[in-house]
Amino acid sequence: MQGNDILSSQPAWLDEAELAGIRSKMPLIYVEAVPVRIDHLGRVERVGLLLTPQADGRLARAIVSGRVLYGERVRDALWRHLSKDLGPDSDPQIPADPSPFTVVEYFPDDRSGFTDPRQHAVSLVFLVPISGEVAPSESSLAFSWLTVEEACSITIASEMSGGQDRIIRMAMAHAGVLP
Amino acid sequence: MQGNDILSSQPAWLDEAELAGIRSKMPLIYVEAVPVRIDHLGRVERVGLLLTPQADGRLARAIVSGRVLYGERVRDALWRHLSKDLGPDSDPQIPADPSPFTVVEYFPDDRSGFTDPRQHAVSLVFLVPISGEVAPSESSLAFSWLTVEEACSITIASEMSGGQDRIIRMAMAHAGVLP
Amino acid sequence: MQGNDILSSQPAWLDEAELAGIRSKMPLIYVEAVPVRIDHLGRVERVGLLLTPQADGRLARAIVSGRVLYGERVRDALWRHLSKDLGPDSDPQIPADPSPFTVVEYFPDDRSGFTDPRQHAVSLVFLVPISGEVAPSESSLAFSWLTVEEACSITIASEMSGGQDRIIRMAMAHAGVLP
Amino acid sequence: MQGNDILSSQPAWLDEAELAGIRSKMPLIYVEAVPVRIDHLGRVERVGLLLTPQADGRLARAIVSGRVLYGERVRDALWRHLSKDLGPDSDPQIPADPSPFTVVEYFPDDRSGFTDPRQHAVSLVFLVPISGEVAPSESSLAFSWLTVEEACSITIASEMSGGQDRIIRMAMAHAGVLP
Repeated sequence: MQGNDILSSQPAWLDEAELAGIRSKMPLIYVEAVPVRIDHLGRVERVGLLLTPQADGRLARAIVSGRVLYGERVRDALWRHLSKDLGPDSDPQIPADPSPFTVVEYFPDDRSGFTDPRQHAVSLVFLVPISGEVAPSESSLAFSWLTVEEACSITIASEMSGGQDRIIRMAMAHAGVLP
Repeated sequence: MQGNDILSSQPAWLDEAELAGIRSKMPLIYVEAVPVRIDHLGRVERVGLLLTPQADGRLARAIVSGRVLYGERVRDALWRHLSKDLGPDSDPQIPADPSPFTVVEYFPDDRSGFTDPRQHAVSLVFLVPISGEVAPSESSLAFSWLTVEEACSITIASEMSGGQDRIIRMAMAHAGVLP
Repeated sequence: MQGNDILSSQPAWLDEAELAGIRSKMPLIYVEAVPVRIDHLGRVERVGLLLTPQADGRLARAIVSGRVLYGERVRDALWRHLSKDLGPDSDPQIPADPSPFTVVEYFPDDRSGFTDPRQHAVSLVFLVPISGEVAPSESSLAFSWLTVEEACSITIASEMSGGQDRIIRMAMAHAGVLP
Repeated sequence: MQGNDILSSQPAWLDEAELAGIRSKMPLIYVEAVPVRIDHLGRVERVGLLLTPQADGRLARAIVSGRVLYGERVRDALWRHLSKDLGPDSDPQIPADPSPFTVVEYFPDDRSGFTDPRQHAVSLVFLVPISGEVAPSESSLAFSWLTVEEACSITIASEMSGGQDRIIRMAMAHAGVLP
């Protein structure tokens, strides 16, 4: 966390009890990133997925995901979570457009098709080309570059949770490569 | 607030002290709408602005703006704030695309060019055609339909606060009619 | 064709031989529209498909599609083709944003996954809510409103041609409702 | 022009007389790119403008612009024109999303605010980060990286033609940095 990105006069830290209390009363704002490899013409060639313990306790393939902190810019949150999950040399290409390609709403129940047992979260989802070397953090068990067909397959969908398989297909549709 | 839009098992209500406490620790999520009149070909002909007391106490021209509640869908929040501010017969045309045309980040300080003395708010901003009759709520003193040129003028910009004049110009750019 | 939409000093008409000649030398620009029914919150509830003879001679389910003429605005071309194919009372809601949700490139061969035996066409594809009554033109045999699940099904995909089934899925992804 | 990008069985070449003939009968499809420097968070820091003789004979500041050839993909056309105008080491970051941030329609007359004395052209306009070294081609007299404020200034606007100054402001609005 860089000092100039966070409002210095305000506490960005919440203890777990406070966060749990807020989670039952307010929607939280998240950023999520679908990591992709693109060629020199911008065509998506691979989709990167982590293998990570999820909020529901299952081990699942997942995209990069995390909370926006008090005082933090959306761009900084994207950079922070991508650098943490994919490593300091991953060189994510954060898009110039501040608008996500889609907005996903997670709820504890199934009202939206996207679920998170912990909270109501509004997630700004970006497609982020990765041009460097990926070294997943300790919190992930593995990271894999899949072909677009694999990433959109029923097999991989069954290994994802909370509806994130739909996010992958929406990202591929956005990039014009949905099979 | 409709019961089926809000998670019934959870309290959506926060008293003012609780909200004030959260505001110093978490970014809040907002929806904002730039109301427009369009012709049958979708061309923007007028921009609608409220005249409203702002968070900073000034009377200012403003777009429709409000918080997303716990358990509430972004679409429902947009509908709720538009119906409240523009009246029950305004018939807002909420877009099918869940992605806002831009994301604006308000901070108590001037780091982003968008300011809100109360809080850090992440706002999803939508362009919303209004096809019905506008009857602004009591919390607004007036509502005016301006031409695109007026809405983008220095005069009107000087009557807006928190950086919302830039949102108007960004909305007109998005619609291809920025002067 | 309205006189004020077409450059009056220039011939908009091409005879078939001229058009055939140009088609082998230049990409043509098309507009395409995925007609949808939305609810008051903007959620897509139905997808409209024509049953029409295609360029390849097959009878197929199809979206609204047609050429942009010399001197014609993209908005006017969208309006013209929607009004012709869905009838004068269909009341299409042309979007304010001039940017299509995707660009599809049709080629006589299979290089892009989108094929048109006649030509290289660059198509600007829009999602267009239809709020009126549809009365398909004589050139179509039928028009049906399908559920999102039906429109994205393998059965319907097998009844479409040139890759348009992928356009339907991309449109539903754009609207956040891809199954 | 690369053989694998062009339909080999068809002539991509048009002589000047043929092109002139088509230009009076059909809209041509163009790609345009606003070159930008971004920082590691994706924020636009500079806008790149060429100094080039325009279609109307004036010397003007201009964005990268050119025709899509028969058989050529939009991505290939973007790459070809960027490489030609900014040099082989400019390393343009073609976006994954095939949809332009705006569509601009040039006409010989002033109906749209964008003019081209030669033709009716429909232009797909992209914001393209440039990460390499720019070496403008011989057809340009100069290339400059301007600040966002300079690029949006009245002075620079007066040095552009055909309405391209509005494209710059629309691009900055899209990137969230319009002053």
